Amino acid sequence: MKLAVFGAGAVGTSVLELAGDYGHDVVAVADSASAAVDADGLDPEVVTRRKHDEGQVGDGEPADALAADYDVLVEATPTTLGDAEPGFSHVGTALERDRHVVLANKGPVAERYGDLRAAEQASAGSVLFEATVAGAIPTLSTIGDLGADRVTAVRGVLNGTANFILSRMAAEGLDYEHVLAEAQDLGVAEADPTFDVEGTDAALKCVILANVLYDREYTLADAEVSGIADLPGSALKLAAEDGRTVRLIGEVADGTVRVGPRLVPENGTLAVTGTRNIVQLETEHAGRLNISGRGAGGPETASAVLADVGRLSRR
Amino acid sequence: MKLAVFGAGAVGTSVLELAGDYGHDVVAVADSASAAVDADGLDPEVVTRRKHDEGQVGDGEPADALAADYDVLVEATPTTLGDAEPGFSHVGTALERDRHVVLANKGPVAERYGDLRAAEQASAGSVLFEATVAGAIPTLSTIGDLGADRVTAVRGVLNGTANFILSRMAAEGLDYEHVLAEAQDLGVAEADPTFDVEGTDAALKCVILANVLYDREYTLADAEVSGIADLPGSALKLAAEDGRTVRLIGEVADGTVRVGPRLVPENGTLAVTGTRNIVQLETEHAGRLNISGRGAGGPETASAVLADVGRLSRR
Repeated sequence: MKLAVFGAGAVGTSVLELAGDYGHDVVAVADSASAAVDADGLDPEVVTRRKHDEGQVGDGEPADALAADYDVLVEATPTTLGDAEPGFSHVGTALERDRHVVLANKGPVAERYGDLRAAEQASAGSVLFEATVAGAIPTLSTIGDLGADRVTAVRGVLNGTANFILSRMAAEGLDYEHVLAEAQDLGVAEADPTFDVEGTDAALKCVILANVLYDREYTLADAEVSGIADLPGSALKLAAEDGRTVRLIGEVADGTVRVGPRLVPENGTLAVTGTRNIVQLETEHAGRLNISGRGAGGPETASAVLADVGRLSRR
Repeated sequence: MKLAVFGAGAVGTSVLELAGDYGHDVVAVADSASAAVDADGLDPEVVTRRKHDEGQVGDGEPADALAADYDVLVEATPTTLGDAEPGFSHVGTALERDRHVVLANKGPVAERYGDLRAAEQASAGSVLFEATVAGAIPTLSTIGDLGADRVTAVRGVLNGTANFILSRMAAEGLDYEHVLAEAQDLGVAEADPTFDVEGTDAALKCVILANVLYDREYTLADAEVSGIADLPGSALKLAAEDGRTVRLIGEVADGTVRVGPRLVPENGTLAVTGTRNIVQLETEHAGRLNISGRGAGGPETASAVLADVGRLSRR
C-alpha cells in the first residue's frame, strides 16, 4: 500500500521507518508546516535526518501531502480535543477522495465519532484506529473478533505515565511530586504531565472503547474522570498493609465511562508495573481476557498502525 | 455463512448453539456415526437433545454432512495423531469442493501441516485454526496482525488441566496423585489424563505455533516434551521457599519447540492459576505481549471458531 503519514513525532517517524519492512511505501510525510512527497516512495533516513537537522520534513506544504496519490492516510498528529483539528480535516479529505484512513491520533475518534463514521459511510474508504487504544495491545481487533455486542465490559490500565508514577510511589514509599520529577527526568512524563496524570489520556481511550462497544457517540464530556495528582503517598502505604495497591483504572461498562484511582490486589492481574498497560475484556461466551503490553512508544504504536494497514490491504 | 459442523462434543455443540447469535446458519452436523442435514438451517435444540437422548445427531450418515451445501466446514472432532484422521479427510473434502475450513481439531494442523497447506493452495477455500491454540485467547490472529516474522518467540501455559494440578499442588502442598484424583472428580482432568499431564496437548499447540511462525512443517516428533506426572510435591515446596513456583511451559523459539515444567516467579505473569492459560509473544517492534484467558471449554473455543468464520465472511 502507498501511505501518506501525517505527523512526524515518535509514531509518525516509526511508521515511516517500519513501513518498508511491512511491504508498504510511504509516498508522503507531513508535519505541521512542511511536507515531503515522492510517488516512488520516500527514503525514511533522508526525511528523518532533515526533520532532525532542519525541523522540517521536506520542501513541500502539508497540502501537497494531502493531495498525494496514496492508498492510506495515517493520521499521527498530536491528539487535540473539541473539534479534533487539524487531524479531523486530514481524515475528512482522505475519505472524500475515497482513500482509507488509519488513526493513531485519538481526537477524531474520541471527540467526533459521529462525524467520523458519517464521513466513512459516504466514502469508499475505511477507517481503522487500533493504535488509539493502548499502543501495541490488540484491543480493538480482539473486540472486533469477539463482536462488540458480546463484550460486556472493558477495564484496564491505559496510561503508562500514571502507572509508572503509581508503581514507583508504592515501591519506594515516595510522594507524588518526587516521583513525577523523577519520571520527567527519565522522559516517562512530559514537562506538562496534565494529560496523563489527570486521567484525560486514559479517558479518551475509554471513550473510544465506548464508541466501539455501544456504537453511539461518546465524547470526553461523557466520561467521569479523576486523576492521581492528589493521591497522597499514605494512601498507597495503607493499601499495601492490606495486600493491595492503587492503579489508575479506566472502565467502560453498562453504558458508562469512568476513570480514576482504584484499589487492586497487589499481585493481581491489573497491577501491572512501570509503563506497561493492561486491557481486561469481559466477554459473553469466552470469559475474561487479559492483554498486557506496551501501551505507548513509537515503534509499538507504529506496529498497531501497520497492523491496521495490513488489514486494509487484505480486504 | 452456512456451516457444516463435524464433531458433536463440547466444542461442536457450542458452535451449533452460538452460530445463530453470530448471524450464521448450521446446515449440517455430524458425529462419528450419524448426521443431521437441513439446507434451511438446523434447530440447535433438536439436534443437541437427540444427541443427548439417543447418542446420535440425526438420521443421516456423516457422508451426507460432507456433501451438504455449506460455505464453511468446522472440524471439531477429537484430535488424533499421525495421519490426523478422520479430521484430515473432512478438511480435504471441503477444500476439494472449494469451501472454507475452520479447525478446532489440532491434528491436521499439528501433524500434517504441509498436506494441509498444499490442499488449501489447490483450493479456492481458506483454512483458519485460531481455536486450535489456547481456546478463547486470540493467539494466531495477533500473530497474523503482527506478522509471523516479527514474532521472535512464543511461550506460555497452554494446558489448563496441568496448570490446575500444579496450582493446587503448590497452594495445598499436596502430591500429584492426590490432586489428579481431585481434578478428575471435578471434571477438570479426564479419566485418562495422559494427553494433558504428559505435555502432548501443550506440545501440539506449540507445534502449530511453530508451523505458523516458521512456515515449515513441524510435527509432534520435532518437539522436546516432558510432563508433570513425575513432579514431586517437594519440588514445589522448594520452589516456594525461593518465591517461585512450577508451571508447564511450552516454548517456540529459535526454530525449536519445547514443553516441560519450569520454575517461574510465584507472582509473575506466567504463573496463572487454575485452568487459565497464558500466551506470551516476544515481538520485534512491539515488545512483549501477554494474553491470558480461558484456554479450553465449549463456548470459549466455539467463540474462537466463530471469530474465524467472521474473518472468512468479511473476505
